[in-house]
Amino acid sequence: MTYCVAMCLDLGMIFASDSRTNAGVDQIAKFSKMRVFAREGERVIIILSSGNLSVTQNAVNILEQRAKSGENALSLWNATSMFDVARLLGDALREVKQRDGPYLAQNNIDSSANFIVGGQLRGEPPRLFEVYSEGNFIEATPDTCYFQIGESKYGKPVIDRVVTRSTGLLEATKCTMVSFDSTMRSNISVGLPIDLVVYETDALKLKLQRRIEESDPYFQMVHKKWGEGLRSVFAQLPNPDWV
Amino acid sequence: MTYCVAMCLDLGMIFASDSRTNAGVDQIAKFSKMRVFAREGERVIIILSSGNLSVTQNAVNILEQRAKSGENALSLWNATSMFDVARLLGDALREVKQRDGPYLAQNNIDSSANFIVGGQLRGEPPRLFEVYSEGNFIEATPDTCYFQIGESKYGKPVIDRVVTRSTGLLEATKCTMVSFDSTMRSNISVGLPIDLVVYETDALKLKLQRRIEESDPYFQMVHKKWGEGLRSVFAQLPNPDWV
Repeated sequence: MTYCVAMCLDLGMIFASDSRTNAGVDQIAKFSKMRVFAREGERVIIILSSGNLSVTQNAVNILEQRAKSGENALSLWNATSMFDVARLLGDALREVKQRDGPYLAQNNIDSSANFIVGGQLRGEPPRLFEVYSEGNFIEATPDTCYFQIGESKYGKPVIDRVVTRSTGLLEATKCTMVSFDSTMRSNISVGLPIDLVVYETDALKLKLQRRIEESDPYFQMVHKKWGEGLRSVFAQLPNPDWV
Repeated sequence: MTYCVAMCLDLGMIFASDSRTNAGVDQIAKFSKMRVFAREGERVIIILSSGNLSVTQNAVNILEQRAKSGENALSLWNATSMFDVARLLGDALREVKQRDGPYLAQNNIDSSANFIVGGQLRGEPPRLFEVYSEGNFIEATPDTCYFQIGESKYGKPVIDRVVTRSTGLLEATKCTMVSFDSTMRSNISVGLPIDLVVYETDALKLKLQRRIEESDPYFQMVHKKWGEGLRSVFAQLPNPDWV
Protein backbone atom coordinates (compact mmCIF):
# COMPACT_ATOMS: atom_id res chain seq x y z
CA MET A 1 0.00 0.00 0.00
CA THR A 2 0.93 3.64 -0.21
CA TYR A 3 -0.12 6.98 1.15
CA CYS A 4 0.52 10.18 -0.78
CA VAL A 5 -0.99 13.62 -0.27
CA ALA A 6 -0.52 16.96 -2.02
CA MET A 7 -2.06 20.35 -1.28
CA CYS A 8 -2.35 23.41 -3.51
CA LEU A 9 -2.68 26.44 -1.23
CA ASP A 10 -2.55 30.19 -1.78
CA LEU A 11 0.96 30.42 -0.38
CA GLY A 12 2.36 27.31 -2.01
CA MET A 13 2.21 23.54 -2.25
CA ILE A 14 2.94 20.53 -0.06
CA PHE A 15 3.80 17.08 -1.42
CA ALA A 16 4.39 14.01 0.73
CA SER A 17 4.65 10.27 0.15
CA ASP A 18 5.51 7.22 2.20
CA SER A 19 8.11 4.66 1.07
CA ARG A 20 6.73 1.21 1.73
CA THR A 21 5.84 -1.22 -1.02
CA ASN A 22 4.69 -4.76 -0.62
CA ALA A 23 3.78 -7.68 -2.78
CA GLY A 24 2.33 -9.73 0.02
CA VAL A 25 3.41 -9.38 3.64
CA ASP A 26 6.55 -11.42 3.01
CA GLN A 27 7.83 -9.07 0.34
CA ILE A 28 8.21 -5.60 1.76
CA ALA A 29 10.63 -3.04 0.38
CA LYS A 30 11.45 0.64 0.50
CA PHE A 31 10.84 2.68 -2.64
CA SER A 32 10.40 6.41 -2.89
CA LYS A 33 7.09 7.29 -4.51
CA MET A 34 8.10 10.87 -5.24
CA ARG A 35 9.90 12.18 -8.32
CA VAL A 36 11.01 15.81 -8.60
CA PHE A 37 11.81 17.55 -11.90
CA ALA A 38 13.07 21.07 -11.27
CA ARG A 39 14.97 23.81 -13.10
CA GLU A 40 15.39 26.88 -10.95
CA GLY A 41 13.57 29.92 -12.23
CA GLU A 42 11.78 27.84 -14.83
CA ARG A 43 9.79 24.89 -13.53
CA VAL A 44 9.14 22.65 -10.58
CA ILE A 45 7.20 19.43 -11.23
CA ILE A 46 6.53 16.79 -8.59
CA ILE A 47 4.99 13.38 -9.26
CA LEU A 48 3.62 11.10 -6.52
CA SER A 49 2.52 7.58 -7.34
CA SER A 50 0.52 4.69 -5.93
CA GLY A 51 -0.51 1.30 -7.23
CA ASN A 52 1.45 -1.31 -9.18
CA LEU A 53 5.10 -0.28 -8.78
CA SER A 54 6.25 -1.60 -12.17
CA VAL A 55 3.49 0.35 -13.89
CA THR A 56 4.14 3.64 -12.06
CA GLN A 57 7.92 3.40 -12.40
CA ASN A 58 7.70 2.56 -16.09
CA ALA A 59 5.34 5.46 -16.80
CA VAL A 60 7.65 7.94 -15.06
CA ASN A 61 10.70 6.40 -16.77
CA ILE A 62 9.05 6.90 -20.15
CA LEU A 63 8.49 10.58 -19.33
CA GLU A 64 12.04 10.99 -18.11
CA GLN A 65 13.67 9.18 -21.01
CA ARG A 66 11.76 11.22 -23.59
CA ALA A 67 12.49 14.44 -21.75
CA LYS A 68 16.22 13.59 -21.73
CA SER A 69 16.35 12.60 -25.37
CA GLY A 70 15.98 16.26 -26.25
CA GLU A 71 13.60 15.59 -29.14
CA ASN A 72 11.36 18.44 -30.18
CA ALA A 73 8.29 16.56 -29.01
CA LEU A 74 6.35 17.81 -25.98
CA SER A 75 8.13 16.79 -22.77
CA LEU A 76 8.45 17.52 -19.07
CA TRP A 77 11.15 20.09 -19.85
CA ASN A 78 9.45 22.02 -22.64
CA ALA A 79 5.74 21.78 -21.72
CA THR A 80 4.29 25.25 -21.18
CA SER A 81 1.40 24.21 -18.92
CA MET A 82 0.90 21.77 -16.07
CA PHE A 83 -2.20 20.64 -17.96
CA ASP A 84 0.08 19.35 -20.71
CA VAL A 85 2.30 17.68 -18.12
CA ALA A 86 -0.73 15.85 -16.70
CA ARG A 87 -1.65 14.75 -20.24
CA LEU A 88 1.87 13.46 -20.83
CA LEU A 89 1.69 11.46 -17.62
CA GLY A 90 -1.75 10.06 -18.50
CA ASP A 91 -0.44 9.05 -21.94
CA ALA A 92 2.65 7.38 -20.47
CA LEU A 93 0.46 5.45 -18.02
CA ARG A 94 -1.79 4.26 -20.87
CA GLU A 95 1.26 3.20 -22.88
CA VAL A 96 2.59 1.05 -20.03
CA LYS A 97 -0.81 -0.50 -19.37
CA GLN A 98 -1.24 -1.30 -23.03
CA ARG A 99 2.12 -3.04 -23.08
CA ASP A 100 1.98 -4.86 -19.72
CA GLY A 101 -1.72 -4.95 -18.81
CA PRO A 102 -2.71 -8.11 -20.68
CA TYR A 103 0.26 -10.06 -19.27
CA LEU A 104 -0.56 -8.96 -15.73
CA ALA A 105 -4.24 -9.76 -16.26
CA GLN A 106 -3.31 -13.33 -17.25
CA ASN A 107 -2.15 -13.86 -13.65
CA ASN A 108 -4.86 -11.71 -12.05
CA ILE A 109 -2.28 -9.10 -11.09
CA ASP A 110 -3.76 -5.68 -10.50
CA SER A 111 -2.19 -3.17 -12.88
CA SER A 112 -4.00 -0.15 -11.51
CA ALA A 113 -1.92 2.92 -10.77
CA ASN A 114 -2.61 6.51 -9.73
CA PHE A 115 -0.60 9.69 -9.76
CA ILE A 116 -0.67 13.11 -8.23
CA VAL A 117 1.25 15.60 -10.34
CA GLY A 118 1.70 19.26 -9.57
CA GLY A 119 4.02 22.20 -9.41
CA GLN A 120 4.53 25.43 -11.27
CA LEU A 121 5.80 26.37 -14.72
CA ARG A 122 6.97 29.95 -15.33
CA GLY A 123 4.02 31.96 -16.63
CA GLU A 124 1.39 29.86 -14.84
CA PRO A 125 0.12 29.74 -11.27
CA PRO A 126 0.84 26.54 -9.30
CA ARG A 127 -1.47 23.70 -10.36
CA LEU A 128 -2.26 20.26 -9.00
CA PHE A 129 -3.74 17.22 -10.78
CA GLU A 130 -4.79 13.71 -9.90
CA VAL A 131 -4.31 11.16 -12.68
CA TYR A 132 -6.59 8.14 -12.47
CA SER A 133 -5.67 4.61 -13.40
CA GLU A 134 -7.34 5.01 -16.81
CA GLY A 135 -5.12 8.01 -17.65
CA ASN A 136 -7.85 10.65 -17.30
CA PHE A 137 -7.34 13.33 -14.67
CA ILE A 138 -8.87 16.11 -12.58
CA GLU A 139 -7.45 19.38 -11.26
CA ALA A 140 -7.60 20.76 -7.72
CA THR A 141 -9.73 23.88 -7.23
CA PRO A 142 -10.20 26.35 -4.36
CA ASP A 143 -13.08 24.18 -3.09
CA THR A 144 -11.00 21.01 -3.02
CA CYS A 145 -7.39 22.04 -2.68
CA TYR A 146 -5.81 18.66 -1.91
CA PHE A 147 -5.57 15.15 -3.34
CA GLN A 148 -4.71 11.86 -1.73
CA ILE A 149 -3.86 8.53 -3.36
CA GLY A 150 -3.40 5.08 -1.81
CA GLU A 151 -4.65 4.51 1.74
CA SER A 152 -6.49 7.81 2.04
CA LYS A 153 -9.16 7.31 4.69
CA TYR A 154 -7.25 7.35 7.98
CA GLY A 155 -5.39 10.56 7.12
CA LYS A 156 -8.33 12.46 5.61
CA PRO A 157 -10.35 13.65 8.64
CA VAL A 158 -7.56 15.83 10.08
CA ILE A 159 -6.99 17.52 6.72
CA ASP A 160 -10.71 18.18 6.34
CA ARG A 161 -10.81 19.70 9.80
CA VAL A 162 -7.87 22.09 9.52
CA VAL A 163 -6.73 22.79 5.95
CA THR A 164 -8.28 25.39 3.66
CA ARG A 165 -6.80 27.17 0.67
CA SER A 166 -5.56 29.97 2.97
CA THR A 167 -3.75 27.72 5.47
CA GLY A 168 -0.06 28.62 5.92
CA LEU A 169 2.72 26.33 4.71
CA LEU A 170 4.03 25.52 8.19
CA GLU A 171 0.60 24.61 9.48
CA ALA A 172 -0.15 22.56 6.36
CA THR A 173 3.16 20.73 6.80
CA LYS A 174 2.25 19.99 10.41
CA CYS A 175 -1.16 18.73 9.29
CA THR A 176 0.53 16.50 6.70
CA MET A 177 2.65 14.92 9.45
CA VAL A 178 -0.44 14.25 11.60
CA SER A 179 -2.19 12.79 8.56
CA PHE A 180 0.74 10.40 7.96
CA ASP A 181 0.92 9.50 11.62
CA SER A 182 -2.79 8.56 11.67
CA THR A 183 -2.40 6.51 8.49
CA MET A 184 0.69 4.64 9.63
CA ARG A 185 -0.86 3.90 13.00
CA SER A 186 -3.80 2.12 11.37
CA ASN A 187 -2.23 0.57 8.26
CA ILE A 188 1.12 -1.16 8.64
CA SER A 189 1.54 -1.30 4.88
CA VAL A 190 2.19 2.47 4.94
CA GLY A 191 5.64 3.22 6.38
CA LEU A 192 8.47 5.65 6.98
CA PRO A 193 10.50 7.37 5.64
CA ILE A 194 8.24 10.14 4.37
CA ASP A 195 9.44 12.18 1.40
CA LEU A 196 8.34 15.77 1.85
CA VAL A 197 8.51 18.74 -0.50
CA VAL A 198 7.35 22.27 0.33
CA TYR A 199 7.04 24.75 -2.53
CA GLU A 200 6.36 28.47 -2.18
CA THR A 201 4.18 30.10 -4.85
CA ASP A 202 6.19 31.80 -7.62
CA ALA A 203 9.57 30.73 -6.17
CA LEU A 204 10.23 28.36 -9.09
CA LYS A 205 12.56 26.38 -6.86
CA LEU A 206 11.98 23.99 -3.93
CA LYS A 207 11.65 25.63 -0.53
CA LEU A 208 12.23 22.35 1.28
CA GLN A 209 12.94 18.77 0.29
CA ARG A 210 13.34 16.43 3.21
CA ARG A 211 13.28 12.73 3.98
CA ILE A 212 11.69 12.09 7.37
CA GLU A 213 13.13 8.98 8.98
CA GLU A 214 11.99 7.10 12.07
CA SER A 215 14.52 8.96 14.21
CA ASP A 216 13.15 12.41 13.26
CA PRO A 217 12.48 14.24 16.55
CA TYR A 218 9.67 16.40 15.13
CA PHE A 219 7.79 13.41 13.74
CA GLN A 220 8.27 11.51 17.00
CA MET A 221 6.91 14.49 18.91
CA VAL A 222 3.84 14.75 16.62
CA HIS A 223 3.19 11.02 17.07
CA LYS A 224 3.39 11.24 20.87
CA LYS A 225 1.55 14.51 21.43
CA TRP A 226 -1.23 13.81 18.95
CA GLY A 227 -2.00 10.46 20.56
CA GLU A 228 -1.91 11.95 24.05
CA GLY A 229 -4.03 14.89 22.94
CA LEU A 230 -6.73 12.67 21.44
CA ARG A 231 -6.91 10.51 24.55
CA SER A 232 -7.15 13.61 26.71
CA VAL A 233 -9.96 15.14 24.60
CA PHE A 234 -11.76 11.80 24.83
CA ALA A 235 -11.29 11.63 28.59
CA GLN A 236 -12.74 15.12 28.98
CA LEU A 237 -15.95 14.29 27.08
CA PRO A 238 -18.72 13.51 29.58
CA ASN A 239 -20.12 9.99 29.63
CA PRO A 240 -23.70 9.50 28.38
CA ASP A 241 -26.36 9.53 31.08
CA TRP A 242 -28.59 7.04 29.28
CA VAL A 243 -27.33 3.89 30.91
CA MET B 1 -23.16 2.08 2.97
CA THR B 2 -23.39 1.12 6.60
CA TYR B 3 -21.45 1.35 9.79
CA CYS B 4 -21.89 -1.20 12.58
CA VAL B 5 -19.67 -1.89 15.56
CA ALA B 6 -19.89 -4.30 18.47
CA MET B 7 -17.61 -4.77 21.47
CA CYS B 8 -17.27 -7.73 23.82
CA LEU B 9 -15.84 -6.41 27.09
CA ASP B 10 -15.36 -7.88 30.56
CA LEU B 11 -18.33 -5.96 31.92
CA GLY B 12 -20.65 -6.44 28.97
CA MET B 13 -21.29 -5.74 25.31
CA ILE B 14 -22.04 -2.75 23.11
CA PHE B 15 -23.85 -3.00 19.77
CA ALA B 16 -24.48 -0.05 17.46
CA SER B 17 -25.58 0.42 13.86
CA ASP B 18 -26.48 3.33 11.60
CA SER B 19 -29.72 3.39 9.59
CA ARG B 20 -28.93 4.66 6.10
CA THR B 21 -29.23 2.49 3.04
CA ASN B 22 -28.71 3.57 -0.51
CA ALA B 23 -28.92 2.09 -3.96
CA GLY B 24 -27.22 5.02 -5.66
CA VAL B 25 -27.30 8.57 -4.30
CA ASP B 26 -30.84 9.09 -5.61
CA GLN B 27 -32.25 6.19 -3.63
CA ILE B 28 -31.63 6.70 0.05
CA ALA B 29 -33.76 5.18 2.76
CA LYS B 30 -33.82 4.50 6.46
CA PHE B 31 -33.60 0.88 7.59
CA SER B 32 -32.52 -0.40 10.97
CA LYS B 33 -29.59 -2.78 10.65
CA MET B 34 -30.04 -4.21 14.12
CA ARG B 35 -32.22 -7.14 15.18
CA VAL B 36 -32.67 -8.13 18.80
CA PHE B 37 -33.88 -11.56 19.97
CA ALA B 38 -34.24 -11.63 23.73
CA ARG B 39 -35.93 -13.73 26.40
CA GLU B 40 -35.25 -12.42 29.85
CA GLY B 41 -33.22 -14.74 32.02
CA GLU B 42 -32.56 -17.03 29.08
CA ARG B 43 -30.91 -15.40 26.08
CA VAL B 44 -30.02 -12.13 24.41
CA ILE B 45 -28.96 -12.28 20.75
CA ILE B 46 -28.20 -9.21 18.65
CA ILE B 47 -27.56 -9.25 14.90
CA LEU B 48 -26.04 -6.31 13.00
CA SER B 49 -25.86 -6.39 9.22
CA SER B 50 -24.18 -4.66 6.29
CA GLY B 51 -24.16 -5.22 2.54
CA ASN B 52 -26.98 -6.04 0.17
CA LEU B 53 -30.18 -5.26 2.11
CA SER B 54 -32.33 -7.91 0.44
CA VAL B 55 -29.73 -10.56 1.25
CA THR B 56 -29.29 -9.55 4.91
CA GLN B 57 -33.02 -9.10 5.53
CA ASN B 58 -33.84 -12.44 3.90
CA ALA B 59 -31.21 -14.28 5.91
CA VAL B 60 -32.52 -12.86 9.20
CA ASN B 61 -36.10 -13.53 8.12
CA ILE B 62 -35.25 -17.17 7.49
CA LEU B 63 -33.81 -17.43 11.00
CA GLU B 64 -36.82 -15.73 12.51
CA GLN B 65 -39.41 -17.73 10.59
CA ARG B 66 -37.80 -21.04 11.51
CA ALA B 67 -37.46 -20.01 15.14
CA LYS B 68 -41.17 -19.07 15.24
CA SER B 69 -42.36 -22.25 13.58
CA GLY B 70 -41.48 -24.09 16.77
CA GLU B 71 -40.05 -27.11 14.96
CA ASN B 72 -37.60 -29.24 16.86
CA ALA B 73 -34.75 -28.21 14.58
CA LEU B 74 -31.96 -26.00 15.92
CA SER B 75 -33.10 -22.36 16.07
CA LEU B 76 -32.37 -18.99 17.64
CA TRP B 77 -34.62 -19.89 20.55
CA ASN B 78 -33.31 -23.35 21.37
CA ALA B 79 -29.61 -23.10 20.43
CA THR B 80 -27.42 -23.75 23.47
CA SER B 81 -24.34 -21.87 22.27
CA MET B 82 -23.66 -18.62 20.41
CA PHE B 83 -21.37 -20.71 18.20
CA ASP B 84 -24.45 -22.59 16.97
CA VAL B 85 -26.27 -19.26 16.47
CA ALA B 86 -23.40 -18.00 14.29
CA ARG B 87 -23.57 -21.23 12.29
CA LEU B 88 -27.34 -20.83 11.81
CA LEU B 89 -26.76 -17.29 10.54
CA GLY B 90 -23.98 -18.40 8.18
CA ASP B 91 -26.23 -21.17 6.84
CA ALA B 92 -29.15 -18.77 6.31
CA LEU B 93 -26.85 -16.35 4.46
CA ARG B 94 -25.62 -19.15 2.19
CA GLU B 95 -29.20 -20.24 1.51
CA VAL B 96 -30.21 -16.73 0.39
CA LYS B 97 -27.12 -16.32 -1.76
CA GLN B 98 -27.73 -19.69 -3.38
CA ARG B 99 -31.28 -18.65 -4.24
CA ASP B 100 -30.69 -15.03 -5.30
CA GLY B 101 -26.98 -14.81 -6.09
CA PRO B 102 -27.09 -15.97 -9.72
CA TYR B 103 -29.95 -13.57 -10.55
CA LEU B 104 -28.12 -10.64 -8.96
CA ALA B 105 -24.90 -11.61 -10.71
CA GLN B 106 -26.71 -11.45 -14.08
CA ASN B 107 -27.06 -7.71 -13.55
CA ASN B 108 -23.68 -7.24 -11.85
CA ILE B 109 -25.40 -6.54 -8.54
CA ASP B 110 -23.20 -7.12 -5.54
CA SER B 111 -24.78 -9.73 -3.27
CA SER B 112 -22.13 -9.55 -0.56
CA ALA B 113 -23.35 -9.25 3.02
CA ASN B 114 -21.76 -9.33 6.46
CA PHE B 115 -23.06 -9.81 9.96
CA ILE B 116 -21.97 -9.25 13.49
CA VAL B 117 -23.82 -11.54 15.87
CA GLY B 118 -23.34 -11.65 19.61
CA GLY B 119 -24.95 -11.85 22.98
CA GLN B 120 -25.27 -14.33 25.78
CA LEU B 121 -27.12 -17.62 26.26
CA ARG B 122 -27.67 -18.90 29.80
CA GLY B 123 -24.78 -21.20 30.72
CA GLU B 124 -22.26 -19.46 28.45
CA PRO B 125 -20.24 -16.26 28.79
CA PRO B 126 -21.07 -13.44 26.34
CA ARG B 127 -19.69 -14.16 22.86
CA LEU B 128 -19.28 -12.13 19.71
CA PHE B 129 -18.88 -13.30 16.10
CA GLU B 130 -18.35 -11.74 12.69
CA VAL B 131 -19.95 -13.64 9.83
CA TYR B 132 -18.30 -13.08 6.45
CA SER B 133 -20.07 -12.89 3.13
CA GLU B 134 -19.23 -16.53 2.40
CA GLY B 135 -20.94 -17.69 5.59
CA ASN B 136 -17.76 -18.55 7.51
CA PHE B 137 -17.10 -16.65 10.72
CA ILE B 138 -14.63 -15.66 13.42
CA GLU B 139 -15.03 -15.00 17.15
CA ALA B 140 -13.78 -12.01 19.15
CA THR B 141 -11.05 -12.75 21.70
CA PRO B 142 -9.44 -10.74 24.52
CA ASP B 143 -6.81 -9.50 22.02
CA THR B 144 -9.38 -8.24 19.54
CA CYS B 145 -12.52 -7.53 21.47
CA TYR B 146 -14.51 -5.62 18.83
CA PHE B 147 -15.76 -6.03 15.27
CA GLN B 148 -16.82 -3.49 12.68
CA ILE B 149 -18.66 -4.03 9.40
CA GLY B 150 -19.37 -1.58 6.58
CA GLU B 151 -17.44 1.71 6.48
CA SER B 152 -15.01 0.80 9.22
CA LYS B 153 -11.93 2.94 8.65
CA TYR B 154 -12.95 6.40 9.86
CA GLY B 155 -14.31 5.10 13.14
CA LYS B 156 -11.52 2.64 13.92
CA PRO B 157 -8.65 4.82 15.20
CA VAL B 158 -10.52 6.14 18.23
CA ILE B 159 -11.57 2.62 19.27
CA ASP B 160 -7.99 1.39 18.90
CA ARG B 161 -6.77 4.26 21.07
CA VAL B 162 -9.18 3.93 23.97
CA VAL B 163 -10.97 0.58 24.16
CA THR B 164 -9.56 -2.55 25.76
CA ARG B 165 -11.33 -5.57 27.18
CA SER B 166 -11.44 -3.88 30.62
CA THR B 167 -12.99 -0.59 29.45
CA GLY B 168 -16.21 0.29 31.30
CA LEU B 169 -19.59 0.23 29.56
CA LEU B 170 -20.17 4.00 29.83
CA GLU B 171 -16.78 4.83 28.42
CA ALA B 172 -17.18 2.25 25.64
CA THR B 173 -20.59 3.75 24.79
CA LYS B 174 -19.00 7.21 24.64
CA CYS B 175 -16.27 5.83 22.36
CA THR B 176 -18.91 4.26 20.14
CA MET B 177 -20.58 7.67 19.74
CA VAL B 178 -17.25 9.31 18.79
CA SER B 179 -16.59 6.48 16.36
CA PHE B 180 -19.97 7.06 14.68
CA ASP B 181 -19.45 10.82 14.63
CA SER B 182 -16.08 10.43 12.86
CA THR B 183 -17.59 8.01 10.35
CA MET B 184 -20.63 10.15 9.55
CA ARG B 185 -18.49 13.26 9.18
CA SER B 186 -16.41 11.62 6.43
CA ASN B 187 -18.95 9.35 4.71
CA ILE B 188 -22.37 10.79 3.97
CA SER B 189 -23.70 7.34 3.15
CA VAL B 190 -23.60 6.53 6.88
CA GLY B 191 -26.38 8.34 8.73
CA LEU B 192 -28.48 8.79 11.84
CA PRO B 193 -30.39 7.47 13.68
CA ILE B 194 -28.03 5.13 15.50
CA ASP B 195 -29.48 2.01 17.10
CA LEU B 196 -27.64 1.30 20.32
CA VAL B 197 -27.78 -1.67 22.68
CA VAL B 198 -25.81 -2.01 25.90
CA TYR B 199 -25.71 -5.42 27.57
CA GLU B 200 -24.27 -6.18 31.01
CA THR B 201 -22.51 -9.52 31.46
CA ASP B 202 -24.75 -12.22 32.99
CA ALA B 203 -27.83 -9.93 33.10
CA LEU B 204 -29.60 -11.98 30.40
CA LYS B 205 -31.69 -8.92 29.56
CA LEU B 206 -30.88 -5.64 27.78
CA LYS B 207 -29.45 -2.89 29.97
CA LEU B 208 -30.22 -0.20 27.38
CA GLN B 209 -31.83 -0.11 23.96
CA ARG B 210 -31.96 3.34 22.47
CA ARG B 211 -32.41 5.02 19.09
CA ILE B 212 -30.22 8.11 18.83
CA GLU B 213 -31.80 10.72 16.56
CA GLU B 214 -30.33 13.91 15.15
CA SER B 215 -31.87 15.93 17.96
CA ASP B 216 -30.14 13.91 20.69
CA PRO B 217 -28.37 16.42 22.98
CA TYR B 218 -25.63 14.00 24.03
CA PHE B 219 -24.73 13.09 20.45
CA GLN B 220 -24.77 16.78 19.46
CA MET B 221 -22.45 17.56 22.35
CA VAL B 222 -20.03 14.75 21.37
CA HIS B 223 -20.02 16.03 17.78
CA LYS B 224 -19.25 19.60 18.83
CA LYS B 225 -16.75 18.95 21.60
CA TRP B 226 -14.83 16.26 19.75
CA GLY B 227 -14.33 18.51 16.73
CA GLU B 228 -13.29 21.45 18.90
CA GLY B 229 -10.99 19.23 20.94
CA LEU B 230 -9.19 17.87 17.87
CA ARG B 231 -8.67 21.35 16.44
CA SER B 232 -7.34 22.54 19.77
CA VAL B 233 -4.88 19.60 20.09
CA PHE B 234 -3.73 20.35 16.55
CA ALA B 235 -3.29 24.06 17.29
CA GLN B 236 -1.18 23.25 20.36
CA LEU B 237 1.25 21.06 18.39
CA PRO B 238 4.35 23.10 17.52
CA ASN B 239 5.07 23.78 13.84
CA PRO B 240 8.07 22.06 12.27
CA ASP B 241 11.27 24.09 12.24
CA TRP B 242 12.49 22.59 8.96
CA VAL B 243 11.13 25.21 6.60
